[in-house]
Amino acid sequence: MANTESVNVRVLSLNCWGIRYLSKHCPQRYAMIGDMLCKEEHDIVLLQEVWSEKDYLSMKKKLACSHPHSHYFKSGVIGSGLAIFSKHRIHDTFLFRYSLNGYPYMAHHGDWFGGKAVGMAVLNIGSLTANVYVTHLHAEYCRDKDSYLPHRVVQAWELQQFIRHTSAGADMVILGGDLNMHPQDLGNRLLRSYTGLQDSYLETAKFDGCEDGMTLIADNPFINKKELCPFEKGIRIDYILFKGSPKTDVYCDFMSTTKGSVPDHPFPYSDHEALTAGLRLETNTRAEIGSDRQPKILDSAAGKVAELVDIVTEARTEVKVGLHCAERMRYTATRTGVMGLALLFLELAIAAVPWLALGAEQPFPRTSFYLLAALCFAILLTTFLLYIFYTMELKALQGAEDQMRLAVGSLQEKLRGFPVAQPHNAQRRPPEGHEPGALATEK
Amino acid sequence: MANTESVNVRVLSLNCWGIRYLSKHCPQRYAMIGDMLCKEEHDIVLLQEVWSEKDYLSMKKKLACSHPHSHYFKSGVIGSGLAIFSKHRIHDTFLFRYSLNGYPYMAHHGDWFGGKAVGMAVLNIGSLTANVYVTHLHAEYCRDKDSYLPHRVVQAWELQQFIRHTSAGADMVILGGDLNMHPQDLGNRLLRSYTGLQDSYLETAKFDGCEDGMTLIADNPFINKKELCPFEKGIRIDYILFKGSPKTDVYCDFMSTTKGSVPDHPFPYSDHEALTAGLRLETNTRAEIGSDRQPKILDSAAGKVAELVDIVTEARTEVKVGLHCAERMRYTATRTGVMGLALLFLELAIAAVPWLALGAEQPFPRTSFYLLAALCFAILLTTFLLYIFYTMELKALQGAEDQMRLAVGSLQEKLRGFPVAQPHNAQRRPPEGHEPGALATEK
Repeated sequence: MANTESVNVRVLSLNCWGIRYLSKHCPQRYAMIGDMLCKEEHDIVLLQEVWSEKDYLSMKKKLACSHPHSHYFKSGVIGSGLAIFSKHRIHDTFLFRYSLNGYPYMAHHGDWFGGKAVGMAVLNIGSLTANVYVTHLHAEYCRDKDSYLPHRVVQAWELQQFIRHTSAGADMVILGGDLNMHPQDLGNRLLRSYTGLQDSYLETAKFDGCEDGMTLIADNPFINKKELCPFEKGIRIDYILFKGSPKTDVYCDFMSTTKGSVPDHPFPYSDHEALTAGLRLETNTRAEIGSDRQPKILDSAAGKVAELVDIVTEARTEVKVGLHCAERMRYTATRTGVMGLALLFLELAIAAVPWLALGAEQPFPRTSFYLLAALCFAILLTTFLLYIFYTMELKALQGAEDQMRLAVGSLQEKLRGFPVAQPHNAQRRPPEGHEPGALATEK
Repeated sequence: MANTESVNVRVLSLNCWGIRYLSKHCPQRYAMIGDMLCKEEHDIVLLQEVWSEKDYLSMKKKLACSHPHSHYFKSGVIGSGLAIFSKHRIHDTFLFRYSLNGYPYMAHHGDWFGGKAVGMAVLNIGSLTANVYVTHLHAEYCRDKDSYLPHRVVQAWELQQFIRHTSAGADMVILGGDLNMHPQDLGNRLLRSYTGLQDSYLETAKFDGCEDGMTLIADNPFINKKELCPFEKGIRIDYILFKGSPKTDVYCDFMSTTKGSVPDHPFPYSDHEALTAGLRLETNTRAEIGSDRQPKILDSAAGKVAELVDIVTEARTEVKVGLHCAERMRYTATRTGVMGLALLFLELAIAAVPWLALGAEQPFPRTSFYLLAALCFAILLTTFLLYIFYTMELKALQGAEDQMRLAVGSLQEKLRGFPVAQPHNAQRRPPEGHEPGALATEK
């Protein structure tokens, strides 16, 4: 038998709804959250929407004993709102800002100003390395007509890329946060299928919390029930996801959520429910563990790759919808700008050439002239800024689509190499550089 | 003896200077570059400043036979300008956009519009995985008074973070590009020390090219000699860096640069010289290689960590200078905005309250009123946009500084664990969570 070493890790994730002066009972709720964290002593605490650095710093002070290590991720205009507190030393941190994150002129939604991102912290838990990620994706304001869907899909795409590429050296991967996606939403499937991350709610041996693991519930007094419609009871959009490595197995022993209220307190911690997952790492110290599992993995791998091809293709379609929309918006901005310019030229012409003023004594009333000119300049400036913004959006969408196309090609190539397709050739890799494949031929 | 497997990889890096209609002889130079790449058949070609996607696509068509796999990285307004061509299949790509990249109002410098980034491609060379990176950092326009230095240092910081965190699973790492930094510049030292990347010019067994490996030389007809001053002969700012893995050793067998002219052609490929490196990978298939090397690595590791602490501290100082500057700029923008607002209120007051107009018959000449109001609005809008921009710059600089502080703390912790400091306790890790250390106490 192999030697096994077992480590338990308790993780909490909570969207704190910490908009100073706007969120209800903000200071009181922070005090409650701080007290709870001090008492519960989770190994890792992943917070979102800690919009004010002052709140983070006061929390850091409060948790100095229970969670001596912490990091606050700064981004955008306001900050990413992401914070991590840990009982274990944080050795390294890294922040990836999503390339797309709403529109600055949608100031009432505010997402653009938050500079949404995924923060990573590298922790050593005992002799193991854990890569811990915390993120918060763009909010969904209207599910039926969700104009931010392409942005959220690109964020999910970048999130899975970031986790996949940065976690190769880790024994354990934990992602916590407010994904703003329902369990079966495209971005969620993309994230879980590509990274192999497991949902602690689905994997847990024991669960105590809201029905269906919901984290935004109608029973929460801060929630406007109308906004949840048509999901009367609530939705599940906050997650703790995890995976092990060839060296480590991770199991979820228990999972819980708060239930819209906190005993002995007049209101809950936040408008979202807090999630807690009890994870158990089992390390197999024998070197050959990988080979023991190989047959089991290969059995289902072809099916998984095929599923992944479908999901990435679906995501690509969604990005194309976004591209079409961004192109239309840029076209509208360009047309409006050209009209503003034409108006300006016309005005200058009327003012300069008296006979154009159709015989009026004063060629152009001075006040109207200046007002019109100011309007033209305002149009020109606004449309120029919008043109720049939409071009950047287009580049980011095109970039994501290119990457998805390449990924689909590569996955299809992989599929062709599986035993089902080539029964006598299972382990042989296709020759490099001699097969153009799906990628090189498709454009 | 261990089994060894040897693979040769030829890499080219070139800044193409491909600004359509502005760069001299652009189409002819692209044709020359295409011909050369077709003929030379490098394994990997890393291009920078391919600003137009059309140029990339025509190059892709031309290189369809010699380099069937390619990727163009899109970013910013114009595009990142980064392209990769490869003989080996590209399995995956990922783009990291630097958080800081100059200022949009410095349009004549253009860096901001380029959306500088680092592009990554995962290649399989034989049975080995190579992570190939291509990047282009912010240009240095004035070495004596380099206002972009903090931005470039943060870019170098993010570049090393990105490479370090994404390359754990790779057998070989190659970075090529125009770093816009001299060999001993802070960002360059930071990058090489932290990642362990080796400079092919310094490591090569055989070199053929410009004196001191320079890549921006006075002999190049596209170069304005005055701009090189005080480096009369030229500077070295383009690099091919590489490293192996515990499983693989990488050696540089030869390296060459072009020398400011191309035989049988009236002008060179670009204003930068092209770099070619011949790398040799040797794979040790025995599992215990790591342990063979352990003593040798440990000997020099403490010294290297100490050096790294100094370099990160130096970088932190530079970021603090940038922070100070950004704060000052934001303050100026705020003050100007407040003055614009005060002017607007004053104007409205004069217009609204006749006795303020000091007895003049017409309280306020209408033309002046509108012109002044337009000016006030222009000031308000501009300062508002600048305020937003400087706040984002501040957040990014603060974020980098926080990460650097944490890294220094972690490195110092590592140093304390080395045999010199604790001779009887070399292999024991300090207990987790019980030692606040440099990180927790410093702020």
